[in-house]
Amino acid sequence: MNIVILAAGMGKRMHSALPKVLHPLAGKPLLAHVIDTARTLEPAALVVVVGHGAEQVRATVGGADIAFAEQAQQLGTGHAVMQALPLLDDAVPTLVLYGDVPLTTPATLQRLVASAGPARLGILTVEMDDPTGYGRIVRDAAGRIARIVEQKDATETQRQIREINTGIMVCPTALLRKWLQALRNDNAQGEYYLTDIVEQAAAEHVEIVSAHPDQLCETLGVNSKTQLAELERIHQRDLAARLLENGVTLLDPARLDVRGHLACGRDVIIDVNCIFEGHVAIGDGARIGANCVIRDAVIGAGAHVLPFCHIDQATVGPDSRIGPYARLRPGTTLGEDVHIGNFVEVKNSQIAAHSKANHLAYVGDATVGERVNIGAGTITCNYDGANKFRTIIEDDAFIGSDTQLVAPVTVGRGATLGAGTTLTKNAPPDRLTVSRARQVTIESWTRPVKKPK
Amino acid sequence: MNIVILAAGMGKRMHSALPKVLHPLAGKPLLAHVIDTARTLEPAALVVVVGHGAEQVRATVGGADIAFAEQAQQLGTGHAVMQALPLLDDAVPTLVLYGDVPLTTPATLQRLVASAGPARLGILTVEMDDPTGYGRIVRDAAGRIARIVEQKDATETQRQIREINTGIMVCPTALLRKWLQALRNDNAQGEYYLTDIVEQAAAEHVEIVSAHPDQLCETLGVNSKTQLAELERIHQRDLAARLLENGVTLLDPARLDVRGHLACGRDVIIDVNCIFEGHVAIGDGARIGANCVIRDAVIGAGAHVLPFCHIDQATVGPDSRIGPYARLRPGTTLGEDVHIGNFVEVKNSQIAAHSKANHLAYVGDATVGERVNIGAGTITCNYDGANKFRTIIEDDAFIGSDTQLVAPVTVGRGATLGAGTTLTKNAPPDRLTVSRARQVTIESWTRPVKKPK
Amino acid sequence: MNIVILAAGMGKRMHSALPKVLHPLAGKPLLAHVIDTARTLEPAALVVVVGHGAEQVRATVGGADIAFAEQAQQLGTGHAVMQALPLLDDAVPTLVLYGDVPLTTPATLQRLVASAGPARLGILTVEMDDPTGYGRIVRDAAGRIARIVEQKDATETQRQIREINTGIMVCPTALLRKWLQALRNDNAQGEYYLTDIVEQAAAEHVEIVSAHPDQLCETLGVNSKTQLAELERIHQRDLAARLLENGVTLLDPARLDVRGHLACGRDVIIDVNCIFEGHVAIGDGARIGANCVIRDAVIGAGAHVLPFCHIDQATVGPDSRIGPYARLRPGTTLGEDVHIGNFVEVKNSQIAAHSKANHLAYVGDATVGERVNIGAGTITCNYDGANKFRTIIEDDAFIGSDTQLVAPVTVGRGATLGAGTTLTKNAPPDRLTVSRARQVTIESWTRPVKKPK
Repeated sequence: MNIVILAAGMGKRMHSALPKVLHPLAGKPLLAHVIDTARTLEPAALVVVVGHGAEQVRATVGGADIAFAEQAQQLGTGHAVMQALPLLDDAVPTLVLYGDVPLTTPATLQRLVASAGPARLGILTVEMDDPTGYGRIVRDAAGRIARIVEQKDATETQRQIREINTGIMVCPTALLRKWLQALRNDNAQGEYYLTDIVEQAAAEHVEIVSAHPDQLCETLGVNSKTQLAELERIHQRDLAARLLENGVTLLDPARLDVRGHLACGRDVIIDVNCIFEGHVAIGDGARIGANCVIRDAVIGAGAHVLPFCHIDQATVGPDSRIGPYARLRPGTTLGEDVHIGNFVEVKNSQIAAHSKANHLAYVGDATVGERVNIGAGTITCNYDGANKFRTIIEDDAFIGSDTQLVAPVTVGRGATLGAGTTLTKNAPPDRLTVSRARQVTIESWTRPVKKPK
Repeated sequence: MNIVILAAGMGKRMHSALPKVLHPLAGKPLLAHVIDTARTLEPAALVVVVGHGAEQVRATVGGADIAFAEQAQQLGTGHAVMQALPLLDDAVPTLVLYGDVPLTTPATLQRLVASAGPARLGILTVEMDDPTGYGRIVRDAAGRIARIVEQKDATETQRQIREINTGIMVCPTALLRKWLQALRNDNAQGEYYLTDIVEQAAAEHVEIVSAHPDQLCETLGVNSKTQLAELERIHQRDLAARLLENGVTLLDPARLDVRGHLACGRDVIIDVNCIFEGHVAIGDGARIGANCVIRDAVIGAGAHVLPFCHIDQATVGPDSRIGPYARLRPGTTLGEDVHIGNFVEVKNSQIAAHSKANHLAYVGDATVGERVNIGAGTITCNYDGANKFRTIIEDDAFIGSDTQLVAPVTVGRGATLGAGTTLTKNAPPDRLTVSRARQVTIESWTRPVKKPK
Repeated sequence: MNIVILAAGMGKRMHSALPKVLHPLAGKPLLAHVIDTARTLEPAALVVVVGHGAEQVRATVGGADIAFAEQAQQLGTGHAVMQALPLLDDAVPTLVLYGDVPLTTPATLQRLVASAGPARLGILTVEMDDPTGYGRIVRDAAGRIARIVEQKDATETQRQIREINTGIMVCPTALLRKWLQALRNDNAQGEYYLTDIVEQAAAEHVEIVSAHPDQLCETLGVNSKTQLAELERIHQRDLAARLLENGVTLLDPARLDVRGHLACGRDVIIDVNCIFEGHVAIGDGARIGANCVIRDAVIGAGAHVLPFCHIDQATVGPDSRIGPYARLRPGTTLGEDVHIGNFVEVKNSQIAAHSKANHLAYVGDATVGERVNIGAGTITCNYDGANKFRTIIEDDAFIGSDTQLVAPVTVGRGATLGAGTTLTKNAPPDRLTVSRARQVTIESWTRPVKKPK
């Protein structure tokens, strides 16, 4: 089939400089949700109709399989689809989707396309408790779709109809081409409505069929920040439900945010108020404490991430213990059973198995061996104001508290650095290295006293 | 008009030493909400009737425009209003509000006052799904209010009435004076009920009119911590709805707390679980990460506040990048494009454009120039145990890691401090200054071994 | 009475290596909730029927008052109870509970037991809005329970019945023994159903009575992570409601997690998103800021815990001020009016009244006197890689910023340590002790420049 995604609208009610279809839902632009869903249907042609912010939309969601059609003026949904016609293959039907309706599922669309087949007009319809404002689906005595009646044109009886048109349609492409060219804009808005092709189909006795989504939210569009927030919560609730079904323990499904893809092993426990972004994988038996923010990371099996951790583009080895208040920055790779404790920042560093940095430290651009103990207050001085250098700490080294490792520098295997050392040259293996002034007591000194203000 | 606010109750069910009307909703005492609403009506007299905790109530909410009347004994709402009578102007009607009913809107009260005019008795009434326990509004065949029937006195038919008395009333003042003096306390509680004036009005054929609030919550009172928590969430939900309508992106409207006033520019994004207190202004395009606590602050346009920040009485310059885990304390002013990173505390300091303190540092009582780099572990020693002193760091200085700046001290323009320096005297411009002991390796040293316990 | 708790099921839908009944609700295994409830009834015999993961279940919940019966094969609830028969006393009735139904209250069970008395069969039943799938309680014209009809056997009329069998029963033990032996497994599952004894009771004209729980959730079982999360939230909502009733101020009852026991004094305020684990006691007037995690701790009256604190096995003195971002680890005892500030970790230390460690510090294995000021960046070097030693800081000492206290070491009363000191020997009282290299400026030095990549 062909798929046309309408994405030209401005979204004035969003009060934003960003084109409406680029606002993120679960961390991904609305339009990208629709494109990803469309791709699962393997369309012959995938055409995105752009208008407002066209350049920005193209730059954000473009791909080799996507063609763009430009709708310079927004003259209605029918007019938008017209812009895509030159790019469509008449041999297959055309499915019309909306860049601001992000949650339609592949299964729903497959049902719609299957029910329409090659020769029928298919409409996705849904029952609403309060259909006010929507176009009603009028069926004949045999239950066949006869027409769509808009709210303002509906009789009192028709207004009782709760089945409404979602706007999502699939249509034989040659017929779509013909019907679109016959559309008229003699209505209040002066727009060409895609929906009006239904009347033509009925007039020509083309069979009109319908399919229904599994959930109402699949048909909801985003026109305001209020609606965006509503869909965000619906989507997050659904993502949480899926994790629960797969056996993940969530302490509070209503306080979980997944903005990307979260893959969990068996017996994973996620405490309240965590956020996962990008691609995160969590191994069997790992526990994530409350209030963690984790992005593009791998958390090894049996690892325990304590509360208040911030992990970005990092790998945590199995059975490691991270946090509370640990920050792992891009390029961090931790081996097995590594401990990174409170107020410790690790950046672009490899730390091998059984090593520890438990308290207040900055480990940047470092290669750390196994069984290393990095004392409280240790800082790798990796930046001289112009260039960055690496620190190498070999296996079994013991870095005393409050030391500064002025890179490039190497601490040899089994070396010990005394507390407070400023290390500017390599420390030999198995020896104690210090830089320390003598401790003196000033006998004559007296304490300062509080000055009058 | 005159406005009388009843605020004398103890609130026994609050289980608190704090007078009920002083318990905060969205960070402001219940009574202060009512007073602020009353002020929008520009009353001729604004009288607060105090009783329990009178001194504390006066001290907390007092203002030049507020008169207090003391109700020494709590003998009912009618008795409470009586205490205010000497302070009321008979030329204008009197509106009675309640210090524990915080969410009534000015629009609702304006409607009530307008409908009553100078000569009618106006009652704020509301329809409840379950009116059990409330006084029902009994209307005659013509729909006019005939009387209020209390639950215990109501017939079975009257109990079906869902319109109830909220207690909020407006009344011609001379009539109020007369009717209050005729009140009797021959009821079960032995109290004088304000509501009983409705019967007198009916008996004297004074017209009784009603107005309705926009939302039921406008009429809800607080008698327990349970009710306080309910109103807090209702109010927060409404505040979030207003922000969304204004175009703010809220990742979860149910996880936002605004306790004061939050002004947001265009394209502001606020992640989950943030708290705003006092007056906070956020500029266009700024983003606030998850779990931030921000009080009395200005966040510049384009600034990015990462998760877990705590900002109090500080100004963040445009395009700055703060956090994660940054704490900005009172008196902090950051220029444009300033970076304050993890585990960094800034207090009473000015940091000019393009300067950075990215890792574990304490910057207190400091004046920092432009393009300064403050290394990890830097500490301004601003306190000698008795007095506080300032540190001055001029433009383009580079402060090596783990340095201590013993104030008062100045680092000259373009100066560099070596890692681990204890700076006790000024550092000249453009030069490297260090205080460093020689690095030595102890050849004879052997590692300690674990002692038997 | 005897109590039999069925706890042999695997819980396949939990997708977990942990036996179903050991999954925690509010931090305590499901089965432990049921056992704790059973204990309040002071049973003559308390028998837990184990099967899947029997060893792990015994090890986790065992106690002197608990007998275990093994159900090697899971052949139905009737079969499970049979395994317990040898351990039951015929002189008293037997109450059957379920290890995966955690929220039944003692009051509900007492009502059930009382209504059954010594000679009747008592069934806990509940009305459900949608009873589909449950066994319906069929009553005769006089309202007496006649039988239980399973969903698949129910007539259309019986399916309208909304009263269902919860499975919780109490039965005269001798009758139970007889009826269980007569059970047959000629059903679709090939299992022995406990419920089938109801039919035998009816046939023998033993009176069958019922009791109802106060809340539907008391009868809900856990078969999946989805149901576990639902019960967790129901239970947490109830715990929050109880705290509110007792006068605790909760800023958001839906964002509180209590996993254990939380005792609060008068006028305690708990901000959003806090977690309490184990036994926590909070004194009068104390405030807990947002996002705190507190486990097995005592928070003194008037103390103020600011946001983002992590407190574990610690005691906070009255009127102390902790955080934001303070971590108190096991063995920490703080006196009155102690201040522990941001990015400070305290472990296994006593800190006496009026002392302060306000910024970035690690205080471990230390004994700190009164009125001590611990400067920013101070680190107790308590670990030499093999052994741990204590640091003693006497009253009124002033520890300059960025000092390292190499334990074992003592700072005398009133002593001052200069900034950046590495203290390896005791510091005498009332004197200034420093270890400091001379500050020098390198005239010839030039700044590094950025190297081409």
